[in-house]
Amino acid sequence: MLFFQNDYGQGCIPEIMDILVRTRENSYKGYESDEQSNLARQLIQAQMPSRKADIWFIMGGTLANLTMIRSVLRSYEAVIACNTGHINVHEAGSIEATGHKVIPVPHVNGKVTADAVRKVYAESMLQFGHMAFPKMVYISNATEFGTVYTREEFESLRTVCDELGLYLMMDGARLGAALESGVDYTLDDIAKWCDLFYIGGTKNGALLGEAVCIVNEDLKKNFIFVMKQSGALAAKGWVLGQQFIGLFQDGAFYRVAKQEVELAQEIQTIANELKYPLYIKSSTNQIFISVTEEEYLYLKENIAFEIWEKTDCGYVIRFVTSWHTTQKEIDQLTIYLKQAKALAEEKAD
Amino acid sequence: MLFFQNDYGQGCIPEIMDILVRTRENSYKGYESDEQSNLARQLIQAQMPSRKADIWFIMGGTLANLTMIRSVLRSYEAVIACNTGHINVHEAGSIEATGHKVIPVPHVNGKVTADAVRKVYAESMLQFGHMAFPKMVYISNATEFGTVYTREEFESLRTVCDELGLYLMMDGARLGAALESGVDYTLDDIAKWCDLFYIGGTKNGALLGEAVCIVNEDLKKNFIFVMKQSGALAAKGWVLGQQFIGLFQDGAFYRVAKQEVELAQEIQTIANELKYPLYIKSSTNQIFISVTEEEYLYLKENIAFEIWEKTDCGYVIRFVTSWHTTQKEIDQLTIYLKQAKALAEEKAD
Amino acid sequence: MLFFQNDYGQGCIPEIMDILVRTRENSYKGYESDEQSNLARQLIQAQMPSRKADIWFIMGGTLANLTMIRSVLRSYEAVIACNTGHINVHEAGSIEATGHKVIPVPHVNGKVTADAVRKVYAESMLQFGHMAFPKMVYISNATEFGTVYTREEFESLRTVCDELGLYLMMDGARLGAALESGVDYTLDDIAKWCDLFYIGGTKNGALLGEAVCIVNEDLKKNFIFVMKQSGALAAKGWVLGQQFIGLFQDGAFYRVAKQEVELAQEIQTIANELKYPLYIKSSTNQIFISVTEEEYLYLKENIAFEIWEKTDCGYVIRFVTSWHTTQKEIDQLTIYLKQAKALAEEKAD
Amino acid sequence: MLFFQNDYGQGCIPEIMDILVRTRENSYKGYESDEQSNLARQLIQAQMPSRKADIWFIMGGTLANLTMIRSVLRSYEAVIACNTGHINVHEAGSIEATGHKVIPVPHVNGKVTADAVRKVYAESMLQFGHMAFPKMVYISNATEFGTVYTREEFESLRTVCDELGLYLMMDGARLGAALESGVDYTLDDIAKWCDLFYIGGTKNGALLGEAVCIVNEDLKKNFIFVMKQSGALAAKGWVLGQQFIGLFQDGAFYRVAKQEVELAQEIQTIANELKYPLYIKSSTNQIFISVTEEEYLYLKENIAFEIWEKTDCGYVIRFVTSWHTTQKEIDQLTIYLKQAKALAEEKAD
Repeated sequence: MLFFQNDYGQGCIPEIMDILVRTRENSYKGYESDEQSNLARQLIQAQMPSRKADIWFIMGGTLANLTMIRSVLRSYEAVIACNTGHINVHEAGSIEATGHKVIPVPHVNGKVTADAVRKVYAESMLQFGHMAFPKMVYISNATEFGTVYTREEFESLRTVCDELGLYLMMDGARLGAALESGVDYTLDDIAKWCDLFYIGGTKNGALLGEAVCIVNEDLKKNFIFVMKQSGALAAKGWVLGQQFIGLFQDGAFYRVAKQEVELAQEIQTIANELKYPLYIKSSTNQIFISVTEEEYLYLKENIAFEIWEKTDCGYVIRFVTSWHTTQKEIDQLTIYLKQAKALAEEKAD
Repeated sequence: MLFFQNDYGQGCIPEIMDILVRTRENSYKGYESDEQSNLARQLIQAQMPSRKADIWFIMGGTLANLTMIRSVLRSYEAVIACNTGHINVHEAGSIEATGHKVIPVPHVNGKVTADAVRKVYAESMLQFGHMAFPKMVYISNATEFGTVYTREEFESLRTVCDELGLYLMMDGARLGAALESGVDYTLDDIAKWCDLFYIGGTKNGALLGEAVCIVNEDLKKNFIFVMKQSGALAAKGWVLGQQFIGLFQDGAFYRVAKQEVELAQEIQTIANELKYPLYIKSSTNQIFISVTEEEYLYLKENIAFEIWEKTDCGYVIRFVTSWHTTQKEIDQLTIYLKQAKALAEEKAD
Repeated sequence: MLFFQNDYGQGCIPEIMDILVRTRENSYKGYESDEQSNLARQLIQAQMPSRKADIWFIMGGTLANLTMIRSVLRSYEAVIACNTGHINVHEAGSIEATGHKVIPVPHVNGKVTADAVRKVYAESMLQFGHMAFPKMVYISNATEFGTVYTREEFESLRTVCDELGLYLMMDGARLGAALESGVDYTLDDIAKWCDLFYIGGTKNGALLGEAVCIVNEDLKKNFIFVMKQSGALAAKGWVLGQQFIGLFQDGAFYRVAKQEVELAQEIQTIANELKYPLYIKSSTNQIFISVTEEEYLYLKENIAFEIWEKTDCGYVIRFVTSWHTTQKEIDQLTIYLKQAKALAEEKAD
Repeated sequence: MLFFQNDYGQGCIPEIMDILVRTRENSYKGYESDEQSNLARQLIQAQMPSRKADIWFIMGGTLANLTMIRSVLRSYEAVIACNTGHINVHEAGSIEATGHKVIPVPHVNGKVTADAVRKVYAESMLQFGHMAFPKMVYISNATEFGTVYTREEFESLRTVCDELGLYLMMDGARLGAALESGVDYTLDDIAKWCDLFYIGGTKNGALLGEAVCIVNEDLKKNFIFVMKQSGALAAKGWVLGQQFIGLFQDGAFYRVAKQEVELAQEIQTIANELKYPLYIKSSTNQIFISVTEEEYLYLKENIAFEIWEKTDCGYVIRFVTSWHTTQKEIDQLTIYLKQAKALAEEKAD
């Protein structure tokens, strides 16, 4: 069975496992006060020389998001996200569980636009005091649809945030893929645009863990309390730090992401050539295509993938590449896609 | 520098690392729906044949506690803990952050007593509707002081909980040590006494992770939603499951705990012989002794340990043994303890 | 200046003030355990003989909504509302502040439809455990747009709620107006359809206060704790009870509502005749019409009203009638509406 | 039946009822943006010329407390209160329901001491990040036991708060009684010492309502959002404002309090003379005495009062005077107290 179900279905890159094995018996201080966490911090900081960040490691994306958002917002403040944003749909109400409203705005290709932010802010202030107060914009980059914010989009979001006194937070669960999608910006630019963000490890070759980067000075203070309060401060914090040593000390972070993106784009190209309708044009490692019931039945016998939604005549399905995906698997997937198409056409005749 | 600072300062037992290495490239389903998690569940379930538990894996103790407590309580309900209980003091207000009051009762040797529960419940109901409604009793076993609940204490807590309609929850961060402290009960008894509890991995030789066991049928439904909402549902859930395969498939859980306890008890015996006052008589792997300023200054040059509290003439300090502690380290610690005493006495002359 | 700004801009009907004056020096028990509250309960209960309700009085609508919703939902559960629902937009994130997501569905004439509920429920369950769990449907009747649920709509909502295990809650801030809008159902029917609801006093002639009715047996227990916890249990509870004595002992509740609706409907008819476009066809005491910039400028000099939203060529404005509105005021409003139209047309020539 | 049960058992002083009656048909703007609320603000502000306060009206004490505390604290911050503090025991976990821990310190005569604050702060910071972060001190004045903070105690609390960066908040549910207990300070001093506080109306002759005064500039911003979010922003806000017009435009606030205190002190003196043991020496309008089972049984036949706690041989009971208490009632109470004593002694013979 070919595995294209997600990018968190296999352990981790060898660089990371080597560190875990090698340091298994070392004694470290707890709660991210150890030297491994500090080394990881230095390696990440080196990627964004323009800004000094406070860097913390958290076990997973939902926990990172809720810890970050709750640390920034006061009780009456809310976060703007697009309706398709991960915190709005796929985190089981975790942000609301911290007491804060997620204000949804309509996505454009999976993205929040500056115009949408301006509009919803104005509406929220119409009857001053009666609606939740928007204080933060949450974006995912890459988005939940595999699309990527452009430099211009980032700049206009930064502008509107400055205008309205909002914080800009980026969920970087798939930041590696975004950065390797051909954009003209780097982690250093991200650090200039965002007040805080996290760099995803779990979906980029790590065994677990995300690296939270707080750039805005006003947001740095006492973050450790919010982590502890949220159950997000690991006793063996160095295990998380080591993930990012493995990802950043030798460029594996980018290498993994690049490979994920290239192989996924190959799928998209092939699917397109085979006349599978694209649900959305992705630039990263998640590919969404429409298949008929026939095609679906054939493909699911041979490939593990996710159904994204049901359509009138079939499904939108998602293929995802991971750090573990190989060219050989893409070739095999290509064969299956061709056969599914052939079968379906045969049947149609 | 000898390391007696805590039981979460080194990676993990070789059995666990072997599994991680061996399965590094395998593909698994996400979110604890994989076969490794299921195998771990079977191994744990086999330890408590009298009760059928729903078993879930959560990354750390604070996150386990808050997820479990929030899943059980309704908005107006509160949890009784002893004043020294971990959730009352050392989790940064995490339970309150989920909206629930922790009602403290005075500890007796680090333990909640049935009498204290009965008393605080009666007080809370005096003016019906005006005080937080106690609905759960939280205990730690072993306790924060290294003491252990007896069979009789468990039974009387179970009785009072049944009487008053309270749930009994056990924080088992150091359950292994409790079970290897010479008690006349097993995991199976725990499952009979408690409505829910967790079995600690992090402090018992695992790289990370705790195993939540929900025994009471009423509390099982939809727990996965609460996990997700709390950021406690790991994408690579099998990594957590594997910790407990490593701990339970060949008895490592008990072996590690037994060694931790025996070596710690050796420290306690020696300290006692050397006339270091015991702060409390521990039965497990945490030892608390009083030292003078003099003694402290000498010891801290050679040993990593925690200060528990300041006293008039010195400190209460804590030595903890871990899965990694060796007899050789105990022998060396003994030498240091003797020298500190000798030095202090010399000085006193 | 004519007052058509809202229905909570004047004190209260004389029946209520009389009671307050007459009982000013009486001594009552606190926290709604007094005989006045009990009398009010009997009077309300008499309106819905088919169901036995637990009845409580809360000072205002937002506080009633948040107390009711938090009392029903478990931590991971969410409430479905239409996007225009009061709790979704105009309560400053109060429901989210209790930890619960409000899941918005598109309104149809200001109303939640059974189809929308079925659809959003199915979507929420697609990836079991990853989205907030819908457990309640919140509706306002009359709605925020002055529209009213029909018997058929109520029945289909009840059916879908039964099907999916959802609770149905009605915000009755303007329930009086709804019942006097010509519908073929009564308070007794409401009590059969809803699990819990509140009867609005503030906007229906009372000085303050809403009457929460809990019909579903499962939801009655310990509600007083949730009230106290939410700051919603008034020390001088009888003052709230007395509002509903005043409203229900002699039919004032219906009389006030009837007059509000009739006078408002007169405005709607006139506006329509004068060719003011209706924003929505209201059946109750809130009327929404579109006016040009010109018209607006004239009207606002003479009448207090709310702007509902800006349009390309002017505004949608809202006129509301209250217990205090008179036929004379409607006649004067008619004159102003005519003059504004005339002026605007003159200008246009 | 004599009524000494509490100070919120009768309607309101005539001054307030007159205003309600007189303005019943006036039209006002909603949500405390009206001129009546503004007049009330001016009257209160005039009492504390040294500080400029933002003043808001909230319906009851628990709601005021939770709104104020949640508006001040960030998610990880906690409030220090004495173990007997109202928010710690008698508000059903309302503060915790907003996500914040109440850290209890042992009371001294019902009061928080500066030493206790310093001690608990130091302990909380010992393991930085692991305990809830104390950021506010909550005091009640008069206290739950009828005692009153002295000038010196206020000054030392202010000093410790300044030292440690804590906010000082006063619950003034019975502030009137405190100010009329013979202290050498005024509302103006309170405004200098506290960052925020509320002036109690409900227990001081108003029909309902408390006046929140925010003195610290940093805490003023956007308070209206927190009110709305908490359901604490009344639509007919002027009704609350009018309570404080009635209390402050002609000194009724002080007059009522003075009478409450004088009559209660008379009870205390008599009880003392009759050899009823005082549970605590009160300076205000709540009197706590110990009675035997015998005495209790006699008294409860004739007087409405509260049992404070059970003792080995009887009860601690509480008598409270209100705006409505008369000298005649005190005289009658005296007779009952004598008879109860006589009866009990007779029996004992």
